[in-house]
Amino acid sequence: MTISVIDKNGYFSGSYLTAVTTQKKVEIKKSPISGVMVPSSQPIFAFHVNWTFSDSITAFTGQCFVDSSGERLETMWLLKAIAGSSDDNWASTRVGSNVFRRLI
Amino acid sequence: MTISVIDKNGYFSGSYLTAVTTQKKVEIKKSPISGVMVPSSQPIFAFHVNWTFSDSITAFTGQCFVDSSGERLETMWLLKAIAGSSDDNWASTRVGSNVFRRLI
Amino acid sequence: MTISVIDKNGYFSGSYLTAVTTQKKVEIKKSPISGVMVPSSQPIFAFHVNWTFSDSITAFTGQCFVDSSGERLETMWLLKAIAGSSDDNWASTRVGSNVFRRLI
Amino acid sequence: MTISVIDKNGYFSGSYLTAVTTQKKVEIKKSPISGVMVPSSQPIFAFHVNWTFSDSITAFTGQCFVDSSGERLETMWLLKAIAGSSDDNWASTRVGSNVFRRLI
Repeated sequence: MTISVIDKNGYFSGSYLTAVTTQKKVEIKKSPISGVMVPSSQPIFAFHVNWTFSDSITAFTGQCFVDSSGERLETMWLLKAIAGSSDDNWASTRVGSNVFRRLI
Repeated sequence: MTISVIDKNGYFSGSYLTAVTTQKKVEIKKSPISGVMVPSSQPIFAFHVNWTFSDSITAFTGQCFVDSSGERLETMWLLKAIAGSSDDNWASTRVGSNVFRRLI
Repeated sequence: MTISVIDKNGYFSGSYLTAVTTQKKVEIKKSPISGVMVPSSQPIFAFHVNWTFSDSITAFTGQCFVDSSGERLETMWLLKAIAGSSDDNWASTRVGSNVFRRLI
Repeated sequence: MTISVIDKNGYFSGSYLTAVTTQKKVEIKKSPISGVMVPSSQPIFAFHVNWTFSDSITAFTGQCFVDSSGERLETMWLLKAIAGSSDDNWASTRVGSNVFRRLI
């Protein structure tokens, strides 16, 4: 995940190269990120990733912490896959958590 | 919720005037939306709302359906509140669902 | 969903015959429910369903409301499918919501 | 968290002594667990905890993994607090993740 400079209103963009996919035989590509941060000493943020190799989108929320465990983004996410119809929509949202650390 | 025109890459912005808040004695204000849509006959999308009256952000994912139940956005969301520290972060994310319909 | 009598500690059991599955060509069978309720005028509860026809389990939480919209259980759920390994576990939990109403 | 012997149908009970609460000035007490496991080399399970010191219930789902990272339960959970009315119910469910390891 690469994040651009954050503008004065807290908006940022970037790109995300994931290591995993729910679909087999799909070539993973860098996908665009768009997000916003609420400035604070331990800022909260949200961003979404539009998976360019897949009919799915992930929305993340989280907070940045810097303490004795190091600097990290602790996030929760919803991964929405396209559903063929409203009747199939119930099963189309996955939930999970991720911790991101800065690469030196 | 008011959504602007969607650009050629699927990005849109808008504003959200919610009726509810988790904090008492807070004046609710219109808050900015930023999102992206994957074009399709029943498009999926993600957007986030930066609540200007509150230290919290909501990330939505969902899909637009048009069928015998009418046109609507079926969404799931994560609402992240600011946590005082990483130790308190476990309790800072709410989850829920919403259906949005077009105002005539 | 059929719920048995609730015991003095709030525990109940029952069975659930779902209309939907994430797996094709699977015969849907009645599956056992086990849950607990915290007594109140609008009780909260949790229960889980062990899908006997599928390697998955759903955990529900929710609350019973009786008001001008009628009597209903408003729930959120997590559906856990078996993952082949810890590396695949990130994608194995779905989230959603359901409203249940009493059959006369 | 202490888990009893698991019966032949996969059901188990136990108790949970949490270190955290969302409510201040509450004395934390041991709370009963009730759950079910689907037997497998890496079993999935669900259980709920009825917080005896609080008007809330947590439902967990997860899977047991034993690999080079050790033996552990990887879980996702929903924490439902009581809502005063259906109108307030939208904000009453928290979501998160936890990893549990065996105490020697």
